[in-house]
Amino acid sequence: MTTPSAAPQKREDPIRPTDDAARALAKTLLRSARSGSLATLGRDGHPSASLVSLATDSDGTPLILVSALSSHTGYLEADPRCSLLLAPGGKGDPLAHARITLKLAARKVAREGEEGARVRRRFLARQPKAALYVDFGDFSFFALDLKGASLNGGFGRAYELTADDLLSDAAAATAIATMEEDAVEHMNTDHADAVRAYATGLLNAEDGDWRLTGLDPDGADLARADLVLRLPFPAPVTDAASLRRTLAELATAARPHA
Amino acid sequence: MTTPSAAPQKREDPIRPTDDAARALAKTLLRSARSGSLATLGRDGHPSASLVSLATDSDGTPLILVSALSSHTGYLEADPRCSLLLAPGGKGDPLAHARITLKLAARKVAREGEEGARVRRRFLARQPKAALYVDFGDFSFFALDLKGASLNGGFGRAYELTADDLLSDAAAATAIATMEEDAVEHMNTDHADAVRAYATGLLNAEDGDWRLTGLDPDGADLARADLVLRLPFPAPVTDAASLRRTLAELATAARPHA
Repeated sequence: MTTPSAAPQKREDPIRPTDDAARALAKTLLRSARSGSLATLGRDGHPSASLVSLATDSDGTPLILVSALSSHTGYLEADPRCSLLLAPGGKGDPLAHARITLKLAARKVAREGEEGARVRRRFLARQPKAALYVDFGDFSFFALDLKGASLNGGFGRAYELTADDLLSDAAAATAIATMEEDAVEHMNTDHADAVRAYATGLLNAEDGDWRLTGLDPDGADLARADLVLRLPFPAPVTDAASLRRTLAELATAARPHA
Repeated sequence: MTTPSAAPQKREDPIRPTDDAARALAKTLLRSARSGSLATLGRDGHPSASLVSLATDSDGTPLILVSALSSHTGYLEADPRCSLLLAPGGKGDPLAHARITLKLAARKVAREGEEGARVRRRFLARQPKAALYVDFGDFSFFALDLKGASLNGGFGRAYELTADDLLSDAAAATAIATMEEDAVEHMNTDHADAVRAYATGLLNAEDGDWRLTGLDPDGADLARADLVLRLPFPAPVTDAASLRRTLAELATAARPHA
């Protein structure tokens, strides 16, 4: 056995200055997650980690749909402070893969009204099987408002991010959300070949019946059966015109020889 | 949009009485995990979820190896209360798969002494790549002492477990730990065919260079490159004789026509 005093190695603080690559990685982790580990505070103050399925609101705010029969729901109602770990993982040492810890405050979303309708629509677009229980009386939506985040890109590549680093511009999010349902349907109906080309030509996915499931200022969500993909936009879109232009440019980029 | 008041559905408390099948599932989740989501308390009392790689001590107590440069290490030193989510997941809806939330108290393990040596040996057997940093001066082992657990076998199949439901008998764990290193080497050197048969014949794994990496009262840990498997014993073993008998019986069961 080697004792730490035998060969102490002093290493430096691994926090790096936040750059565009870190912001892009953080946004992709946030927008790609279908589930995450939620840390809440139990009634005795003891932390508790549990599994939740996820969607994002138009601006990137994480959304959960939870049952009053689950412990974490009562915990969030008693103390809204919580955290989400998004760690998609991959082969080999799990600590070699990028993951992000979000610092959050939970806020119950009323079913009635514009936000409630948008949250329900976006959650079901992302988690279609939740349609089986979304309207059970014991289920509620919570928006998890972002307070900050710690991004870990693997050993020694750590970043501290603000909510602004991760979220989309609020006005742009509202504008895109208003047209989202129609734009998604239009793309899937009239430009199914472009959607497939996004998946195969830009995201190296296997060919198949890829569908658009969501649009927001920072990118597009794609799904095929249980698989999901995130297509980040080269620059944020703010309105119908810039959304249309970006989708068209990406379709051209995805099929360079078409 | 359907409002909850439109079709309220009253559902029952999903906690079921703990039975042997629940204990076996919980132990398999605990003993199979290579990583987990750790919920700790930040200095401001805010919960925080982060990724940790895992091993278990001989009795099943989760072990982590963490750097002083990681936030969670300072959090655990300031307040030992923590929780681990073990959620191996699978295809489709993540909430359809079994997972377990452990309620824990972290305790730093001194490098010196019998426990320190055993913890280091078992951790490296489970996480061989950690040899690269295990002796860095900023890394420490923590044992996460079990206080209880919530098992979720999928929708509506929830159980509350005690530490005794999950941990192995302490005397048996000590006895097996003492002979573990020699027994593992003996099996890998002289009975490599039996180890392979455990993987292919009992655990439906693809054939390949499977190696034994650990033995404890409740079962055996197997690994092949980045894959790990857990072979639960039909009944706990308590000493060298019952361990030898169980390993031989399982080898016969794994090769019924040999």
